[in-house]
Amino acid sequence: MINWTSRSGSLIDPPVLFLKKWPATSAFGPEPVMIFDKKLLRVVPGFREWVSQFRYLYPVEAGESLKAIEKFPSHMTKMLELTRALSPKTMSFVAIGGGSLGDFVGFVASLFKRGVTLYQIPSTWLAAIDSSHGGKTALNVGTAKNQIGTFYGAAKIFIVKPLLLQQPQERVQDGLGEMVKISLIDGGEWTRSFFQVKHASAEVLWKFLPAAIASKYRVIRRDPFETRGDRQILNLGHTLGHLFEVLGPYSHGIAVGQGLFFALEWSYHRGYLTKAFLHSARVFLEEKLSLRPWPAQQKTLGRKDFHQLLLKDKKREKSSSLQFIFLRGMGRPLRKLVTLDELTNEAARQGILKAVNRKVLLH
Amino acid sequence: MINWTSRSGSLIDPPVLFLKKWPATSAFGPEPVMIFDKKLLRVVPGFREWVSQFRYLYPVEAGESLKAIEKFPSHMTKMLELTRALSPKTMSFVAIGGGSLGDFVGFVASLFKRGVTLYQIPSTWLAAIDSSHGGKTALNVGTAKNQIGTFYGAAKIFIVKPLLLQQPQERVQDGLGEMVKISLIDGGEWTRSFFQVKHASAEVLWKFLPAAIASKYRVIRRDPFETRGDRQILNLGHTLGHLFEVLGPYSHGIAVGQGLFFALEWSYHRGYLTKAFLHSARVFLEEKLSLRPWPAQQKTLGRKDFHQLLLKDKKREKSSSLQFIFLRGMGRPLRKLVTLDELTNEAARQGILKAVNRKVLLH
Repeated sequence: MINWTSRSGSLIDPPVLFLKKWPATSAFGPEPVMIFDKKLLRVVPGFREWVSQFRYLYPVEAGESLKAIEKFPSHMTKMLELTRALSPKTMSFVAIGGGSLGDFVGFVASLFKRGVTLYQIPSTWLAAIDSSHGGKTALNVGTAKNQIGTFYGAAKIFIVKPLLLQQPQERVQDGLGEMVKISLIDGGEWTRSFFQVKHASAEVLWKFLPAAIASKYRVIRRDPFETRGDRQILNLGHTLGHLFEVLGPYSHGIAVGQGLFFALEWSYHRGYLTKAFLHSARVFLEEKLSLRPWPAQQKTLGRKDFHQLLLKDKKREKSSSLQFIFLRGMGRPLRKLVTLDELTNEAARQGILKAVNRKVLLH
Repeated sequence: MINWTSRSGSLIDPPVLFLKKWPATSAFGPEPVMIFDKKLLRVVPGFREWVSQFRYLYPVEAGESLKAIEKFPSHMTKMLELTRALSPKTMSFVAIGGGSLGDFVGFVASLFKRGVTLYQIPSTWLAAIDSSHGGKTALNVGTAKNQIGTFYGAAKIFIVKPLLLQQPQERVQDGLGEMVKISLIDGGEWTRSFFQVKHASAEVLWKFLPAAIASKYRVIRRDPFETRGDRQILNLGHTLGHLFEVLGPYSHGIAVGQGLFFALEWSYHRGYLTKAFLHSARVFLEEKLSLRPWPAQQKTLGRKDFHQLLLKDKKREKSSSLQFIFLRGMGRPLRKLVTLDELTNEAARQGILKAVNRKVLLH
């Protein structure tokens, strides 16, 4: 077995701790630097008191703008100043926030003094299920997201219940989009009881979180650096999901849910799925989890715009094909190269493409 | 055996190719991007013709300013633009230049699209012997060097004779400083014939380069991410070397040579080395390689300034001790924690500290 170790943790099997209360201050080594979403001070009861116990604090405005490369030099200067008295061997960065903050802090930890210990404390369901695992870090360059980044595993990931429970119901929906995605990819024992839940709730997410996370690590283990392509199956629902996210705009998990409806329908249409499977999956998504397909009537979309949005998402100038993730049944994702034309025809068939109205789309 | 693999190459055993002519254009995969020191176009016969065969060229002004973090966002924007039509899986970055260029390109390759293939073609003896091996990459933040960086191994390193032979004689001296350092650390069979060379020349460097490089990899293998500390023995001669480099200013290899005289003398004074060993090492350094000790009379240096320069080099606000590399004989480096006071007393004993003249030192 190859050990994909960094100076912090492994990409494939870091300890994930599920905690019903805030972690002890001693959990992060002798010299932790807390990098956190400022907003948490305001919206999460008890957070201010907890974080104030630490000596080195670096509050930030979270969101994609945190990942803007233009701001990177100034962050580095400030962080070096803040940590001047610390040793790279004993200090650590603790990321407390959602996906964008986790991406940013992971990136910084991976290159600060050539790598310091990293801990992740996701504050959103999406980050708890997905982005805080697997060691992908990133910054944005201009309008293009995640153009630079590293693979850098956290030494530990803390899943803290009082932090996650503070989120509004929309964020629960968001989390469910990613959770149902990983359940379809995995298809293991846990997904049977997951598919029997009666309604979407934070408690459902909390209950199935350990199993969902373990599923993601099973995929990552096969392809930690995303070189073989296996890791791409995690993109189930994401090809159109990313596009819906921009077009809506919708939050990531909701858009992934919409993308899943699309991928399931196409998989059925290609003969990979039975009608019965498609039907029961749709019923589960819609009636139990309150996830919905893309509301096609809402916006109009021409073929050219569709092409360009897809290519923009893939950050490629031109390409005639891309990898699409189909499903052949529970736990049976199928990665296949499809042409842009095939994808566009399918979008037309599903009623997603309509009359052209360019101005709303391209910027 | 742990495999310290990245998306490019391994830190511990990448192929190193010794070539008597320019590499074939096919040596770098289907989509190489040549990042090179502009100066080479002017000073190296045949370089312009060779590099012009490639489609993607990114000439830069080499030197430490290339590593300034303030310029990093604009480099990333330009490089993304240049490589827009390329696939991250098939493209590569080829670094052609000295140490600073190699640090910069290695850093970029390690995070561009989360890692692309990297090739190193060192254009200086120093880079050929030392900095192009071991995967250390870096940028500078403000006046502090190498504050951020990654460990990212090259897929291959090309040691190209016509490129290296174009360097002036001072650069040969430079290379010898690092070569004698690694020979003292290694002490293997090759060092016996190295210690019998009659005078410094480019041919001597070329002859012993493969063995010297293999010695460095033997050290790296024991501690690829510099977490255990073994890799620090490569700093033999560097603690005072860095200081002499700034104070002189001297080029890196010459200053390392001066630092070696200091380390040998201190090792003898502490009883780690015999008088006979010290004598023969000094004779070899001075008479055969034309390396010299720090010319103490040249500049004056007080205790306080000495302390501050050492701490500045270590990028630490305050510290009362540091790791110093002594030598106990051929191939027997000894890493020991010494106090700043001990180091300062020894510098005074060796006549390096003199009357205070602050103004020349601190900026």
